[in-house]
Order: sequence, then C-alpha cells, then structure tokens
Amino acid sequence: MKVIAIDSSGLVASVAVAQDDTLIGEYNVNYKKTHSQTLLPMLDELKRMVELDLSTVDAIALASGPGSFTGLRIGSATAKGLGFAMNVPLVEIPTLDGLACNLYGSDKLVCPLMDARRNQVYTGIYAFEREQEEPPFTWRLKSLLPQCAVSIDEIARKCNELGREVIFLGDGVPVFAERLGELLRIPYGFAPAHMNRQRAAAFAPLAIQYLREGRCVSAADHAPEYLRPSQAEREAGICCESEK
Amino acid sequence: MKVIAIDSSGLVASVAVAQDDTLIGEYNVNYKKTHSQTLLPMLDELKRMVELDLSTVDAIALASGPGSFTGLRIGSATAKGLGFAMNVPLVEIPTLDGLACNLYGSDKLVCPLMDARRNQVYTGIYAFEREQEEPPFTWRLKSLLPQCAVSIDEIARKCNELGREVIFLGDGVPVFAERLGELLRIPYGFAPAHMNRQRAAAFAPLAIQYLREGRCVSAADHAPEYLRPSQAEREAGICCESEK
Repeated sequence: MKVIAIDSSGLVASVAVAQDDTLIGEYNVNYKKTHSQTLLPMLDELKRMVELDLSTVDAIALASGPGSFTGLRIGSATAKGLGFAMNVPLVEIPTLDGLACNLYGSDKLVCPLMDARRNQVYTGIYAFEREQEEPPFTWRLKSLLPQCAVSIDEIARKCNELGREVIFLGDGVPVFAERLGELLRIPYGFAPAHMNRQRAAAFAPLAIQYLREGRCVSAADHAPEYLRPSQAEREAGICCESEK
Repeated sequence: MKVIAIDSSGLVASVAVAQDDTLIGEYNVNYKKTHSQTLLPMLDELKRMVELDLSTVDAIALASGPGSFTGLRIGSATAKGLGFAMNVPLVEIPTLDGLACNLYGSDKLVCPLMDARRNQVYTGIYAFEREQEEPPFTWRLKSLLPQCAVSIDEIARKCNELGREVIFLGDGVPVFAERLGELLRIPYGFAPAHMNRQRAAAFAPLAIQYLREGRCVSAADHAPEYLRPSQAEREAGICCESEK
C-alpha cells in the first residue's frame, strides 16, 4: 500500500511518500513561510523527484488536529483536494499520536507538547508496546492519555502519577522546559532536533496500518479536529459548553 | 552553529540543514536515481525553500563511509566542493554512527547493517548513554563495536555475547533477517520505515557537537573511509595487507 502523508499542524511543513515498510521520500521544512507557500510546492517537488504516479497512491494521510487553526485548514484543504481528485480515502492521524511516532519503539513514555497558547498545551501520553511474544519485535503505539488541551501543570501531574521516565518533544518544550523542571518528580528527557517536531514520515507506517484496518474516511467526510474553538469563535460567543 | 548535512552512502540521497537544537529542513529520497542526479538538486531546492544564506553555514557534515563506493565519492566530491567554495570545514561522520543516530536515545543496543556484498555487512554496535546525572536527560552515542566489515554470523555472535536487546536497521535487514533469526539468542527487533535508512538530519546534532569540539577537517584533507578496497582495486591486485 502506498500513501502520501502530510503534516501542517505546527510550524513545520512536512510531506512524505511511503509504501509498505519503505519510506520512498520525505521533505520537511521548519521555516517562517506559511504552509500555503510551502506544502503543495514541496509535495510537487517530491512527486517529481521520486517520479510518483498518482494513480498508484492508495490514500492521503494527514495530521488531522489539533494544531494551528490556519495550518490545519491548509492541510485539510490540501488533503481533501487530493483525495477528491485522486478518488482515494483520507487517513486521519491525531496530531499528537503522529508526533509521538517520532520516538517509535521507545521504552520510555512519550509526551508530545504543542504550545496551544492561553496557558495550555495540546498533549497526550503514549507508550510503545511489543506486538509479538517472540522476536523479531515490532511495536504498537498505545495511548495512555488521548490527546487533549490542558495546562502544563495538569500534564506534569499526570506524568508524575504514571511514575515512569518520560521523553518530551514538540514546540511546547522550549516554552515549558523550566516549568516542567519545577513540576516533575520523575526521570525525564527531551528529544533531539531530528525527533522533536512534526514529521509526516513518522506516522506514515501507522497510516498504512490504519488503511489496512479500514480506518479511513472519504475526502468529503474529513474535517480537522481543533479540540478547542478558534479565537474568532470565542470572541463571537460561538463555543462549546465546556469552553463557556 | 549551522551545518549542512549530506548522506549518499547508500541508496538514500539525504540532505539537511540544522542550526543548534533545531532542524531547519531536510529532504530524503530513497529512489533508483543515482546520487549525481539527486544530491545537489535536492540541496539546491532545500536551500531555496529555507532561504539559506550560505555565508551563515559553519560546516558541511557528511557520512564519510563506508558505503557504496560511487555514492561515497559523489558525497565527498560534493562536500569538498562546497567546503572549498564556502571556506568551511567538513565534519566526517562514520556512516554506521550516523545510521545509529536514527534511534537516538534508545535504551536498546543499536546495530546498523549495510549489505556490503561478498557475504559481509558494514556494521557496528552502539548504545546511548545518559549525559547527565539529573534530568532533563540527553544522550550520547557510544560505540561498543566501531564500524567494520564482517560476516552476518560474526556480528550476530557479538550481539549474542553482549546479551542485551538489539534493534537492527539498514538495508542489510531485509537481506539478512532470516539468517539473524537463526543466529540470535537475544531479544531483538527491526526499526520501522522512518528510522531504518540513512538520514542526514539524524546525525546533524552529532555533527554540531563534533564541530564545537573541533573534530573537523579541511575540505582538502577529507577522504572517504571505504573500509575495504574497491572491486577495481581487488581485481588489479591493489589491496591492503589484511585483504590479501
């Protein structure tokens, strides 16, 4: 199975093409340009370089939220357009699940942190479980705390409760590193540069697994998962009960 | 510090730009084109996308071998040309060390395997050691077996001797997976698609660390590390003592 994977949920613009157990190509940019300037040109460039025949692609996988509202809308619009035009389904990868895949196979707990402003982070807590009893082992992503928007104090408290070593990653790390140091009572560390931001290639294997399991949606049915109402909605008084 | 990192030691063509703890961009292609067709155009594309001012780059890091002889020469020629023109040093990253960085921070042993033909693999055994006594932890790559060319039986024996769980990665995995299953007496697993091939971004943080420590060479002094004589040298009888 072959998928195009895209992530525009944060500052990074990321595209990848993967087939079964092979990453055919990827292009990641963490730069101040907006995703509307980068995402499609990057995908077009990658498509050209690996001579990708779009008729051989089985699905479009995307980081489906939460994240930057504008970023998510650019990603969703791109994925929907491609899905419609190519007549293939979309595989929605929760953004924090996708981020956690950067540390695939880690024996430590993985806690991605995205700065959600308003004193919150988009976060979750993940573990990798062995899929087999006997080697060779592969691992399956398990969510111990599904992605959510909470305060840094709240997620630190949950990490302390679990009592295991945690690796943090994401754009929330530089923002909250000092506060984490004050709050955490467990061993912890930070992921290095090549593992600490959105990377579509990291969730491409998960997307292929989901596609095999039929966990996909039509381009028409896909909508991003914002987790919280947008600033415009809040200011207009259009928000869900929990936010009132 | 800012580095351009390149890896053309295997089938993957890989370029990255990193500054201190941040990966600014990367472009990786695992496709049948030769590196002479891909490497410089990819770097040029990435440079344009992240508006890289070459005068701000401190060094060129490269996978310095072993690997495909032609691939290494393309990578070395590219890095030397850039180093000369930009008047910056080169940071040589042993190919297998660079591959191991894909699994940065793993608690398991890491054993990259590159198919070296003639019934050998280019390989090594690595561990990641905590750099600090207190959190937040980061990790340092430690070589338990420096990179070498040996038989798959020999490297399996060394892994069995060490007695710890090992993760294998690299293009040697699909070639030798069955034989490893026969030989290994320890728990082991295989890295997933996004972690199992050359990725210049993975060794960029290591390159920046080496650069800070002054571990670099001039463009004139750099030469790839082949580990073995080439086929042409063998057939012409020009080979080192150990190969006779």
